[in-house]
Amino acid sequence: MTQEKFLGSIEAGGTKFILAVQNAETGEMVAQKRVPTTDAKETLQKSVEFFKDNPVAALGIGTFGPIDINPNSRTYGYILDTPKRGWSGTDVKGFFEQQLHIPVVMTTDVNASAYGEYIARGKDDTKTYYYITIGTGIGAGIVQAGKFVGLNNHPEIGHMFVRTYPGDDYAGNCPFHGNKCAEGMAAGPTLKGRTGIAGEDLPRDNQVFNYLAYYVAQVLYNSYMAMRPDVMVVGGSVLNEDDLKQVRKYFDEFNNNYVATPPLDELIVRPAVADNGSATLGDFELAKQALAQK
Amino acid sequence: MTQEKFLGSIEAGGTKFILAVQNAETGEMVAQKRVPTTDAKETLQKSVEFFKDNPVAALGIGTFGPIDINPNSRTYGYILDTPKRGWSGTDVKGFFEQQLHIPVVMTTDVNASAYGEYIARGKDDTKTYYYITIGTGIGAGIVQAGKFVGLNNHPEIGHMFVRTYPGDDYAGNCPFHGNKCAEGMAAGPTLKGRTGIAGEDLPRDNQVFNYLAYYVAQVLYNSYMAMRPDVMVVGGSVLNEDDLKQVRKYFDEFNNNYVATPPLDELIVRPAVADNGSATLGDFELAKQALAQK
Repeated sequence: MTQEKFLGSIEAGGTKFILAVQNAETGEMVAQKRVPTTDAKETLQKSVEFFKDNPVAALGIGTFGPIDINPNSRTYGYILDTPKRGWSGTDVKGFFEQQLHIPVVMTTDVNASAYGEYIARGKDDTKTYYYITIGTGIGAGIVQAGKFVGLNNHPEIGHMFVRTYPGDDYAGNCPFHGNKCAEGMAAGPTLKGRTGIAGEDLPRDNQVFNYLAYYVAQVLYNSYMAMRPDVMVVGGSVLNEDDLKQVRKYFDEFNNNYVATPPLDELIVRPAVADNGSATLGDFELAKQALAQK
Repeated sequence: MTQEKFLGSIEAGGTKFILAVQNAETGEMVAQKRVPTTDAKETLQKSVEFFKDNPVAALGIGTFGPIDINPNSRTYGYILDTPKRGWSGTDVKGFFEQQLHIPVVMTTDVNASAYGEYIARGKDDTKTYYYITIGTGIGAGIVQAGKFVGLNNHPEIGHMFVRTYPGDDYAGNCPFHGNKCAEGMAAGPTLKGRTGIAGEDLPRDNQVFNYLAYYVAQVLYNSYMAMRPDVMVVGGSVLNEDDLKQVRKYFDEFNNNYVATPPLDELIVRPAVADNGSATLGDFELAKQALAQK
């Protein structure tokens, strides 16, 4: 088996690593594995074994952050300071390069997803693709003319400040910004934080989902004013298609006809690829490019 | 006289048009004129006469907005709906192209300034340059890897929402967003709006300057989280170097050590070119590029 036509993807999340191999010629996914995220050493070792069994010509990694994405930095490709035990200062990119002797591209999970949406939605270099995910945290990646916005450091859009919903007295869940930032007020853990009930057990008409829609709409509105993207994709498991209606309603209220936008049900949408597949698609494409540049 | 070595700039502001001609070989400014901004017809006519007397090979225009910057749009280069009387729907770019038969590039005044800062600060394509101005309104332009952020529509960063300073009960000055957006709470006219005294007559230790610093710092913080620029230039006449100390203090307080930043007195700075010269510098460079692409 020649490995030249296979590309690898790692979607490195806080709870699991999703490993995948694609046949670059056919686009077919030929192998996939999930590895639980434990400490860095064990997780990386199990991941590299998969790629030794399933050789690839290049590897794209979309990972949880914060990470160093500055190509001129000494710690390029490292996980930076993180509360995740045993991961701070891990040279993820270097590990796979040394073990596999192939080109490795590493970016954030949300950048990879944004890149996947850029591919899935037609790879139009005249457009700006914005991807935000609401999960354990809130993060976003942006692709403009095929390049990521945020050259030397990746966006941290979840930590944008938001105006408090009138009467919402929740103290917030962000260790850095309390109730001031979007992540503190609208990431997944705030559902249980506000109600004592796990998010998946809450009825969708609970007021907390209205709060979340309000804060997410503010982040989208502020981001729209900053970068004027052509599409804003809302991923993650916390908000569903129905919740987006409320998000669009608030976005419209905030803008108040100041700027012309595309129809909001075309601007603010769910991912083009189901089950967070955008990230894997993005990883494969980044791996392909790394190979072309080798 | 051959016109081939001369480039033109128009800094099209709400109160005056600043017209300039540069000798592209020496970089010397060889002619300059100010035309008061009256109605579109008169202002454009006076401007074009200057360039008929002082022929140039290409023209860069940085203008007040909103404008259409989408190259694929039918109204590319037009002033869009504006409260400025007699300007809505004016085809500024087309007017100069038809009258002068030369390549014309048009962008926003703040994009032009951001481009000028990119030039003046070393034209480093590995960096992101952010320029914000606090004047009659609040606007920003961003240059990343030599390209503007906001491909099809320009940023409207002044209309980002901000958290209200505790106890600040000013109703806000934005006709669209009241006290919710930065422009409504921190643009020049809010000084008189809050105190009844013109901004230039207010002592600098008046509490209103503290409010302004707080709101501007929030816009910078939110923008930093969105795009992670390498430098954030604060232009305009409303805030001075001294006020920036307070802006940096609030920025630091907001970030609360969440992300690593450059030293704040290197991140948040006044323009590299005095007297709003960044815009003219940016216009000349954009004109030069238009000529090269002809």
